[in-house]
Amino acid sequence: MRILIIGGGGFVGRKLASRLAERGTLRGTDITHLALADIAAPSAIDAAFAVTAHTLDIADRGAVDAMISEDWDVIYHLAAVVSAEAEADFVAGMRTNFFGTFNLLEACRDRVETPVIVYASSVASYSTDVPQPIRDWTATTPQTSYGTQKAIGELLLNDYSRRGFIDGRGVRLPTVVVRPGKPNAAASSFFSSIIREPLQGDPAMCPVSTDQEVWLASPRVTVENLVKVAEIDGAALGGIRNFSLPGMTITVAAMLAALEKVAGENVLGLVDHERDPTIEKIVQGWSSRLETDVADTLGLDRDEDFERIIRDFMATDMEPADP
Amino acid sequence: MRILIIGGGGFVGRKLASRLAERGTLRGTDITHLALADIAAPSAIDAAFAVTAHTLDIADRGAVDAMISEDWDVIYHLAAVVSAEAEADFVAGMRTNFFGTFNLLEACRDRVETPVIVYASSVASYSTDVPQPIRDWTATTPQTSYGTQKAIGELLLNDYSRRGFIDGRGVRLPTVVVRPGKPNAAASSFFSSIIREPLQGDPAMCPVSTDQEVWLASPRVTVENLVKVAEIDGAALGGIRNFSLPGMTITVAAMLAALEKVAGENVLGLVDHERDPTIEKIVQGWSSRLETDVADTLGLDRDEDFERIIRDFMATDMEPADP
Repeated sequence: MRILIIGGGGFVGRKLASRLAERGTLRGTDITHLALADIAAPSAIDAAFAVTAHTLDIADRGAVDAMISEDWDVIYHLAAVVSAEAEADFVAGMRTNFFGTFNLLEACRDRVETPVIVYASSVASYSTDVPQPIRDWTATTPQTSYGTQKAIGELLLNDYSRRGFIDGRGVRLPTVVVRPGKPNAAASSFFSSIIREPLQGDPAMCPVSTDQEVWLASPRVTVENLVKVAEIDGAALGGIRNFSLPGMTITVAAMLAALEKVAGENVLGLVDHERDPTIEKIVQGWSSRLETDVADTLGLDRDEDFERIIRDFMATDMEPADP
Repeated sequence: MRILIIGGGGFVGRKLASRLAERGTLRGTDITHLALADIAAPSAIDAAFAVTAHTLDIADRGAVDAMISEDWDVIYHLAAVVSAEAEADFVAGMRTNFFGTFNLLEACRDRVETPVIVYASSVASYSTDVPQPIRDWTATTPQTSYGTQKAIGELLLNDYSRRGFIDGRGVRLPTVVVRPGKPNAAASSFFSSIIREPLQGDPAMCPVSTDQEVWLASPRVTVENLVKVAEIDGAALGGIRNFSLPGMTITVAAMLAALEKVAGENVLGLVDHERDPTIEKIVQGWSSRLETDVADTLGLDRDEDFERIIRDFMATDMEPADP
């Protein structure tokens, strides 16, 4: 079992790599090689099998062809220019999210072996301009360039799978909270910051109304589902290879109440509130209520308890406060 | 009012050009120049304004840039590699339908003037794998490469419009029946052949069950709707620039019954029946039942009577029988 994680330097990619190292197997077979590729070479991880790190710009067709010249049994495609960045820089988003995904699929098209490809799409491919809750058969009517590019990737993945070029499965990830580390250029970044920064003793800014709802999943459940999605029988998905991963719907107010319950009342003093119309417009366009029939039928996991998500973050990812 | 029809050599493009010549105006303004572009230079039409013909391969980015270096007020994008051809030749379909549409949108992106773009998508971007009837907010889950490429074009059109690069409106055309001329490589071609050929005294082959339903519109109504779609206020569409054009649902049996009623009982002897699994699979994957709320709200036209469609064909497009 040879596995390639494109976007293997990102936080989901690194957590997925660690989980695969812990398991040692995927699809019932021992993992022999795990390759982590990203725009900057990812740091290695400890594992009982070979782990290699690679610098890869997926917008570079030749580089992608070279990476795929080896046979991979499972390829995770997690690489993306994130939402606010793709909104601010249209060309950068098209380059990585649109052409990058196309390059990967094209590189796989003429392989003798058909790789399993797990493609990370996003709830951002949905919008609030259509009847809610979102179902697996609701139109992707994205109101961001990021969501548009992700939805296009879904369509390509489906057609390349239907034609037998790949064995793809595309999953729309909820906003993943609590992300460790530093804020990034995702419009959703603050959903993690308002929990992570106060816990680490730092101030955070909430740019939306506390009534704002979000559809989220924890890193732990997200990674577990990415493993499960690679293991399902692609044929069982029929003609539609893309579906939403389970999430939970919660307001910012409820997130902050859970934070207070876990970390004490003083912690909320570190959260300032100042509306940012740019962020607010993007986030309000995302659906926060989804039915996930396909994922539920497949037996995928779902977060139920935001306090547990906070405690998981404290146990595994929290960084010590600045001295 | 300067109008460019890409795909201006196709039968819908030529009928649209004639209708524009008849009208003389679009969007309340006198037409001064109509350019017809296609993979082979279209034949000219008579009009009171300037009409030019151009050879254009939309898969050729430089050629598209040159064509768009002039300012166009309205661009119709009707060019496509059709369904059965895109299914048989994946690369040809991607080249014209995927990159061709991208090339056009990119060429328009940096213009000072924002053109109205009317994009012909297709009912083939829908499938029967989702709850029927199809609504404007039903997922496009195409089961052909043609439908996939059309659905991707819709997503691009929407995002380029949202960002203000163009003023786009994408319309999913029903199968257009009765097409004049010869059969083409569209899987839907026989829906016209089984009417057209017998009327012209030639034999025709029906490759599907007579129970097969189809979602169709006449050339007359299709062209009238393409004119109306250019004239609506793009802003009125909100965040979703793509919608289905009205059609009628009819079985092959009902089509043949209407043919017999119009042309007499002997005519059906010219229609042979032999199932073709390739055509059947493609056609069965298309939805035949759609609700067209957006189009209805916009006041677009709808065919109601298949006998009238046959009579319209006989009056305007029928060719004399071979001597």
